[in-house]
Amino acid sequence: MKAAYYHGNRTIGIEACVPRRPAADEVRIEVAYGGVCGSDLSIFQGHRDMRMRLPMIIGHEMSGTIAEVGVQEKEWREGDRVVVRPLDPCGNCPSCASGDFHVCYHLNFLGVESAGAFQSSWTVPAHTLHRLPASVPLDLAALVEPTAVAYHALDASSLEPGQWAVVIGGGPIGLLNALVARRRSARVLLAEINPCRLEFARSMGLETVDPLEEDLEAVVLERTGGAGADVVFEVSGTAAGAAAMTGLVRARGLIVVVAVFNEAPRIDLFRSFMRELRFCAVRAYEPEDFERSIALIAGRELPLERMISERRSLEELPEVFARMESNPQIIKVLLDLKGA
Amino acid sequence: MKAAYYHGNRTIGIEACVPRRPAADEVRIEVAYGGVCGSDLSIFQGHRDMRMRLPMIIGHEMSGTIAEVGVQEKEWREGDRVVVRPLDPCGNCPSCASGDFHVCYHLNFLGVESAGAFQSSWTVPAHTLHRLPASVPLDLAALVEPTAVAYHALDASSLEPGQWAVVIGGGPIGLLNALVARRRSARVLLAEINPCRLEFARSMGLETVDPLEEDLEAVVLERTGGAGADVVFEVSGTAAGAAAMTGLVRARGLIVVVAVFNEAPRIDLFRSFMRELRFCAVRAYEPEDFERSIALIAGRELPLERMISERRSLEELPEVFARMESNPQIIKVLLDLKGA
Repeated sequence: MKAAYYHGNRTIGIEACVPRRPAADEVRIEVAYGGVCGSDLSIFQGHRDMRMRLPMIIGHEMSGTIAEVGVQEKEWREGDRVVVRPLDPCGNCPSCASGDFHVCYHLNFLGVESAGAFQSSWTVPAHTLHRLPASVPLDLAALVEPTAVAYHALDASSLEPGQWAVVIGGGPIGLLNALVARRRSARVLLAEINPCRLEFARSMGLETVDPLEEDLEAVVLERTGGAGADVVFEVSGTAAGAAAMTGLVRARGLIVVVAVFNEAPRIDLFRSFMRELRFCAVRAYEPEDFERSIALIAGRELPLERMISERRSLEELPEVFARMESNPQIIKVLLDLKGA
Repeated sequence: MKAAYYHGNRTIGIEACVPRRPAADEVRIEVAYGGVCGSDLSIFQGHRDMRMRLPMIIGHEMSGTIAEVGVQEKEWREGDRVVVRPLDPCGNCPSCASGDFHVCYHLNFLGVESAGAFQSSWTVPAHTLHRLPASVPLDLAALVEPTAVAYHALDASSLEPGQWAVVIGGGPIGLLNALVARRRSARVLLAEINPCRLEFARSMGLETVDPLEEDLEAVVLERTGGAGADVVFEVSGTAAGAAAMTGLVRARGLIVVVAVFNEAPRIDLFRSFMRELRFCAVRAYEPEDFERSIALIAGRELPLERMISERRSLEELPEVFARMESNPQIIKVLLDLKGA
């Protein structure tokens, strides 16, 4: 079998490796599909080097079938179709003591701090597993993880039906954020500057604004009767998004920072003061976010399969990263890992 | 009578003016004392010029006695001892419609957008008044307004007894923030770099850290068992404070931004993401914050009179600003405005 190793210095090697037998509380999964995430690209670009022991097998969006079960494991069987919630918390830190395992102070994020999903055979702790209903095909199941990110952000927002949400950034997470917000009967505006993503978002039925063409703040104020949005989701991770977000939200409204900012942006705290703005940063997901994502995908209410732009082999991953950096048309690339 | 006019360009003129007769729903106050606030200094330094029509009478911390009452006014009488909550909201904007008058979209802040307290005779809307009990002397009453700022921030924090709070910045508001937090039985660390303010804070019984002498993050982690503080109050308004604040708070903890930042600082959103940090900016106060401040001062539980560093005449205000900029020993200067 082969796996995608990140070696640092923008280098990905597709190299032979040996399946690892599961420990007593682990399972070994035959991975079917892996989704390539913006944070995988961030790893490739070197932004996570200080958190990683190199070389490291990357990847954390996936679906697969259990191939082997550890001796203590009773809940899972060979052949079970699953996705992995790639968080392995320490169990002892202040967050774990509060039950907030997803923000564990020593979180082992599979695919960053330990071996990830971009291999055909992946051995993981059994506590990370979520079961897939038969109605969910394995390719769509690879979208469970990013959809869980969107649900987690939606929950943090407490967005209510009829309220206005602005989503800044129309990549996969921004799109999913907008779609789950709309599904909660919120009114949603998606801000994006990439024409391909704008067109794709509109084809998903979303209302869009291109801040390079229109004054985003003026549009938001006009649509919200001068108040501003109830919630702004910052999903672009850009200095421009961080600069814009404080101007879009109503007094005492909430900015949910979903994007991972590799550099500390400037934030307009004077505007924040004038309007008593609230912010919350969100990370990953909790178990219920995975369950709701699976239910959403099982229900086939959203045309999520349209988000899969390309299907590639593991060997093509280096080229996929190069194309994600240059090709604005890609939404989500799936790697077919069966037998890789 | 005379008043302190800000003319722009670091110029304060102490100039003659005529008392204004109160309209039907107004009162005219003989001002006793005015407190000089850091935001008055900000005005003097030009940071509020875009909000102001010049020249403008400044000042918003005060105490006084009603001298004249508008014809429709039934609740107030000549001789009533009062403080002014210097907010005149529009009544029609989205915030006013929600009852959040203090973050009115068109807020008239007395002393910034309209004539302020640094004059011996001040005419204000009657809805801005709070009654002083006989037990509160007028000099201490001039501290009601900054104490209300501290209470408003404390409420936003939901700080609970036994929790850890770090206050960044030991000026008057930071000191008051620390004192009201401690009074709520929180455990409080005050971070400040000015030796005089550090010594003053310690003389008030506060535990202090000088980040130039000690590693503030390490001290906070050590004191909080590795968790970080439950709440951080950023009251310094400095780039250094904004850079430090995200490293001091526990996972899912709260940063309350109390300071007014004239420039947008860089904020570590990566750390915020890793720990799911929450932020809220606070502005001014609501009526109940004033009532609680008055009760606190009436109860004489805190040695607030010690915060009054100097008592000066109105004519000395230009010199006071110069000394606030250069003299690290000043905590709070009161202007004696009686008969000015």
